[in-house]
Amino acid sequence: MLRTHTCGDLRKDHVGESTTLCGWVQNYRDHGGLVFIDLRDRYGLTQVVFNPDFDPEMHAVARDLRAEDVIQVTGEVIARGVDGKGKSLENPKLPTGQIEVRARELSVLNKSKTPPFEPNSQNLPNEELRLKYRFIDLRRKPLQDAMVMKHRLMQITRNYFDIKGFLEIETPILGKSTPEGARDYLVPSRIHEGAFYALPQSPQIYKQILMVAGYDRYYQIARCFRDEDLRADRQPEFTQVDIEMAFVEREDVLTTIDGLIAAYYEAFKGKELPTPLPRFSHAEVMERFGTDKPDMRFGMELVDVKEIAAECGFGVFKGTIDNGGRVRGINAKGAAGKYSRKDIDGLTEFVKGYGAKGLAFFRVKEEEGKLQLDSPIAKFFEPEHQAAIIEKLGGEAGDLLFFVADKAPVTSAALAALRNRLGKELELYGPDDFDCHWVLDFPLVVWDEEENRWEAEHHPFCMVHPDDADLMATDPGKVRAASYDLVCNGYEAASGSVRIHDPKVQQQVFDLIGMSAEEAEKRFDFLLEALRYGAPPHAGIALGLDRWVMMFGDIPNIRDVIAFPKTQKASDLMSGAPGEVDTKQLKELHIKVDASK
Amino acid sequence: MLRTHTCGDLRKDHVGESTTLCGWVQNYRDHGGLVFIDLRDRYGLTQVVFNPDFDPEMHAVARDLRAEDVIQVTGEVIARGVDGKGKSLENPKLPTGQIEVRARELSVLNKSKTPPFEPNSQNLPNEELRLKYRFIDLRRKPLQDAMVMKHRLMQITRNYFDIKGFLEIETPILGKSTPEGARDYLVPSRIHEGAFYALPQSPQIYKQILMVAGYDRYYQIARCFRDEDLRADRQPEFTQVDIEMAFVEREDVLTTIDGLIAAYYEAFKGKELPTPLPRFSHAEVMERFGTDKPDMRFGMELVDVKEIAAECGFGVFKGTIDNGGRVRGINAKGAAGKYSRKDIDGLTEFVKGYGAKGLAFFRVKEEEGKLQLDSPIAKFFEPEHQAAIIEKLGGEAGDLLFFVADKAPVTSAALAALRNRLGKELELYGPDDFDCHWVLDFPLVVWDEEENRWEAEHHPFCMVHPDDADLMATDPGKVRAASYDLVCNGYEAASGSVRIHDPKVQQQVFDLIGMSAEEAEKRFDFLLEALRYGAPPHAGIALGLDRWVMMFGDIPNIRDVIAFPKTQKASDLMSGAPGEVDTKQLKELHIKVDASK
Repeated sequence: MLRTHTCGDLRKDHVGESTTLCGWVQNYRDHGGLVFIDLRDRYGLTQVVFNPDFDPEMHAVARDLRAEDVIQVTGEVIARGVDGKGKSLENPKLPTGQIEVRARELSVLNKSKTPPFEPNSQNLPNEELRLKYRFIDLRRKPLQDAMVMKHRLMQITRNYFDIKGFLEIETPILGKSTPEGARDYLVPSRIHEGAFYALPQSPQIYKQILMVAGYDRYYQIARCFRDEDLRADRQPEFTQVDIEMAFVEREDVLTTIDGLIAAYYEAFKGKELPTPLPRFSHAEVMERFGTDKPDMRFGMELVDVKEIAAECGFGVFKGTIDNGGRVRGINAKGAAGKYSRKDIDGLTEFVKGYGAKGLAFFRVKEEEGKLQLDSPIAKFFEPEHQAAIIEKLGGEAGDLLFFVADKAPVTSAALAALRNRLGKELELYGPDDFDCHWVLDFPLVVWDEEENRWEAEHHPFCMVHPDDADLMATDPGKVRAASYDLVCNGYEAASGSVRIHDPKVQQQVFDLIGMSAEEAEKRFDFLLEALRYGAPPHAGIALGLDRWVMMFGDIPNIRDVIAFPKTQKASDLMSGAPGEVDTKQLKELHIKVDASK
Repeated sequence: MLRTHTCGDLRKDHVGESTTLCGWVQNYRDHGGLVFIDLRDRYGLTQVVFNPDFDPEMHAVARDLRAEDVIQVTGEVIARGVDGKGKSLENPKLPTGQIEVRARELSVLNKSKTPPFEPNSQNLPNEELRLKYRFIDLRRKPLQDAMVMKHRLMQITRNYFDIKGFLEIETPILGKSTPEGARDYLVPSRIHEGAFYALPQSPQIYKQILMVAGYDRYYQIARCFRDEDLRADRQPEFTQVDIEMAFVEREDVLTTIDGLIAAYYEAFKGKELPTPLPRFSHAEVMERFGTDKPDMRFGMELVDVKEIAAECGFGVFKGTIDNGGRVRGINAKGAAGKYSRKDIDGLTEFVKGYGAKGLAFFRVKEEEGKLQLDSPIAKFFEPEHQAAIIEKLGGEAGDLLFFVADKAPVTSAALAALRNRLGKELELYGPDDFDCHWVLDFPLVVWDEEENRWEAEHHPFCMVHPDDADLMATDPGKVRAASYDLVCNGYEAASGSVRIHDPKVQQQVFDLIGMSAEEAEKRFDFLLEALRYGAPPHAGIALGLDRWVMMFGDIPNIRDVIAFPKTQKASDLMSGAPGEVDTKQLKELHIKVDASK
C-alpha cells in the first residue's frame, strides 16, 4: 500500500506517530511562510503542513500544488496548537481536526489539469457539465455517500436472502423480445441474420421458469432495461431486487418483504420498524386517497359529498351528480390564510393538468360563533348545506376546502395530485417521517379506451384473486388480481403478485386481454410450455433498488444514486454513448442504418 | 407456506409428527395394494405411502399420479418397518431413508404432461433437447448443485470484499463501443438516429474511472459480453468478479486475491490453502512448461537439449539448431508400455495441430545394466548422445521421451499441449489435487504478424514494468508489463495488472501499438481525459466466476454452471432467442435488416 492511513483516520491518539497519506489536494493556503494543504480521499480530510525550514525543496514543490493534484505525503502527526492570541487551532467540524501532519516527504503522484469545477465547491455548475466530468462529480461527498448507501443496501439484501435460503441465480441479459408493455432494447445477432436479442425489461419469465425448475427461493439484484421516453426519475437501465418463491401464498411474500424493509430501516434509520406493515385494499386507498400510491405520512383524505352536492344550489355540483359523476373534496387544515386568490388560480391550473375542469374552494370562517364557508360560490349553498360540508370535512375556522366535481377517475387523479402538492407545501411531514404500507388486490385488468380492449393492470401473469374466479366470464372489470404493491412515501417501492401456475388459467387471461392463442404462443411459448410440465404455485415481487437509495438518502435525483447515469435523452455525456460505429461492424450484424424517415 | 417441511428434512426424530410436503413426483410404485411415491424437491426425496384402506378416493387419485406432477401431501411421519422376511425397509442411501410419510390428504397442485425426459434418469437425451426443456434439465441434481455452489461463491466473494472495505458499484450495460480486441454487441438507439450503444466486454474503463473518482476499493460481479465465435468453454455473456484498487502496488492485489482464493478453498474443499500462492515469472513458465497457463498438478517439464541436438547425427535435430530453432523434450515417466506405435502416431497428428512438423520419441530401456534409447531414429544417436539425453531428461527404464524440433514458439505450443494431454491420460493428478499459482510480468506487447505491428498482450492500459521503462524506445518486445494472471489447474482463472495512471505513458503505449493520438482520442477519449484530472496509481484484476464453479464443482461443461446458457451458435434453445422482431420495432430504431450479402 502506498499509504499507512486514510485521510479520515488520524486522531489525537496518533500524535507522535509517523504516517503516510495519499489523496487529492482540496485546498491550498500559504500562511506565515508555511504551506497548508487539505488532503482529501473518500474517508475524509487531513491538514498537511509544509515547512520551508525543514526542507526548502519540498516546500517549493508544495507551493506548486493545485486543486485535485494527487500526492503522497509522509510525516509526523502533531497536535494542532494555538495561534498567536492563544486561540486553539483545532477544527471541531472535522473528525481529524485535532491534528495535522507535518510533512517530511512529498511525492506528486499525478498532476491535475485545472478542473472544470471543484468537487467541494458550493457553486456547482449545471448538471450537463457535471455529467461530462463525472469522474470529478463523483468525488463529491453526497454522491460518495449515495454509492456507499447503495453498496450497503445491496449487501443487506443479499445477506437477508442468503440467510433465508434464497439462491442468487443469474438470468440472461441477451434474451428474447417478448413485449410486455414497454419498448425493448434490441441487439442484432451476427450469427443469425435478421434475428435480434432483446435486453430484459425484467427477469419475470426466467424467474417463473426457475420456479418450475424447482429453485423454490430465488433472488437476484437484476439489471433491467426499458427503451421508454424518460421522465426525471427513470433511467434506460435500472436495477431491481427480484424475488420469486414457490409453494407459498401471498402472506409469505409479504412477511418476507416486511422483514427486509425492517432490516433496511434498522440500518439506515437506526430504529425498529413495526411489522407487519399496514395493509390496505386497492379499493380502499383509491377511495380515501384517490391514488394507488398514497403518501400516508399525512392525512387530508378525500371526502365524498354526494348527498350535499345533489341537493345544493350550485349547478356544477348538482349537474355532476345528476350525470353520474362524483363530487369529492379535501381539507387543507389551517391553510385558509396561506393561499391567496392568485395561488388558488395556480392550483386550479394544476388540477386541470389531471383532467379536472375546475377547482372549487371554500375558506372556513367563524362568524358570530358559527362556522361558515367563504368563497365566490358560497352564495349557491344554503346555510344547512354549508354546515353539512363543514361537518363532513371536519372543518374548523382557518381551514381551506377544495372540491373537484367530475367523472370519478378525474376526481381521484386531480385530488390525489392536489393532496400531494399541498402536503408538501404545507410541510405536513418531516424528513424523519416514514410511511410504508401494502396496497393489495389491484384490478386484474383495466379498460384500454384507445385499443378498445381489456389490458393487464400489472402484467398478464398475475393470478386471479381466489374469490373472483367466477367474475372472469361475467364482469372482468371487477376481478381482482392476487397482486400487491409496497408504497413508501407516495412511491411504488415494490410490486408483485401471486402468479398463474395453471396453463389453462393463463390462457383465460390471455383471452381476456385479447391475445389469441397463436399470439400468446409466439410471445410466451416457453413460459406456457414450462407451465405444462409441473409448475408449482408461486409468487414474487421486485423492488426498485435506486428508489430505496433515494428514499433513505433523501436524494431527489435518480442520477445521483447511479455511478454512471444517462440523461433524459438516454445519453452518457461522459463516454459519449450512444455513438457512431464502423460500417464494417454493422455489416457483420446484417443491419444498416435506415435514414428513410 | 404450503408445506411444513421440505422433502429433505424428515428424520427418525420426526416420527409421529404431522407433516405437509410439496414437490414433484419422481417415482411411482404400486406394491401390495399400496401406492408409493418418491416426492422430490431441491432439498431431497421423501417416500410417501397411500393406503386404500385409509381413503380409497385419495388412493385412486394417487394411482393416477405420474412423473413430474406437482402435489401437496399431508400425513404422518412413520418409521420404515421390515418386510415379510424381517428385512429392514430403511434406505441407507437416502438422508430421509429411515422414515416415510403415510398420506392423509393429497392435493394435486398441477399435472405435468409426460416430460420429454426424466430429470433423474440415467439415460439423458442429447444436450439440444435438454437445453430446449431447460426447466426440466434444471431439476437435475448436478445442475442444482452447481447453482447452489455459484450462489455460495458469489456470497463468499461479496462478504470477503465487503469486510475489506470494497464498495460494490454498478457500471453501465449500455456503454460505448470501444473495441478492445473482441467484437462488441451493439444496441441501436431510438432517440439518436444512427447511433449505437455497445454492451461492455468488461467494466475496465469504468472501473479505472472510479479510481480517478476516488472510490479506492471497488468490486462488482459484472456481466460481460463478447460477440466471438464460441468455443466449448465460452458464452456470449459471462460473469466476472471485477476488482480495482487505488494507492496500491501489485503486491496488494496479489495478497487480496490470495485471501479470496483461500476463502473459496476453505468453503469448497474444507481445507486451508497455504498462502501466499506461488509466483512465477512469465519467462520461467514459458521455459519450463511452454505455456503461460501451466498445469502444475504434475511435473513433466520441458527440457532443452540444444547441445546434444547440435552434435547428434539426426539431421532434423541438428538442422533445427543450425537454423536457430529449438529442440525440447518431455519425459512421460513409465509410459513406454502404455503407448503403442499407433497411439504415438495419434500424438504426432495431435502436435501437428499446434504447428509441429513431427514428434520424435524414444522408449528408455535397460540392456545389460545400461540405459539406452529405443526408437526408429535411435540409430542416429551415438551412445554418448543417448546417455546425455537420458540423463538430461532424468530417464529411467520404461520412460517414454518425446521431442519437438522447431521454431521456439512451436516447440512451446506443441509440447505444452502434449504435456497436458499426457498428464490427463496418464492420470498424473487426482480430483483433489489443486494447483493455483501466479504468473507475473507478461510481455507488454506481442508482434502481430498479420497486421505487422505491436499489439497489447493484455490490454493497452497495463503499466510498464518499472525496470523496463528504458526499453520502450529501444526493444519493445522485451518490455514486461506489470501484469499478473492467476493460473489454476491449467486455466487462466484471473487476470489483471497495475494500470497506467499517467496520460503521457498511456499515449506512449498507444503509440507503440500503432494507435494514433486521434484514434486513441476517438476510442478512449473519456479515459484519457479522466487521467488528466488527478488519477491515482491503481491496479486491478478480474476472475471468471463460471470457471471457478467449474473447477470446484469438477464440472467440465460451462453450460452446466449457467442457469440459461446459450449454444455455441449463441442461441437460447428454450426461449428461441435471438428471434425475429416486428418491422415497426426496427423502424423506431432507424435500422433495417441488410440481406445484401
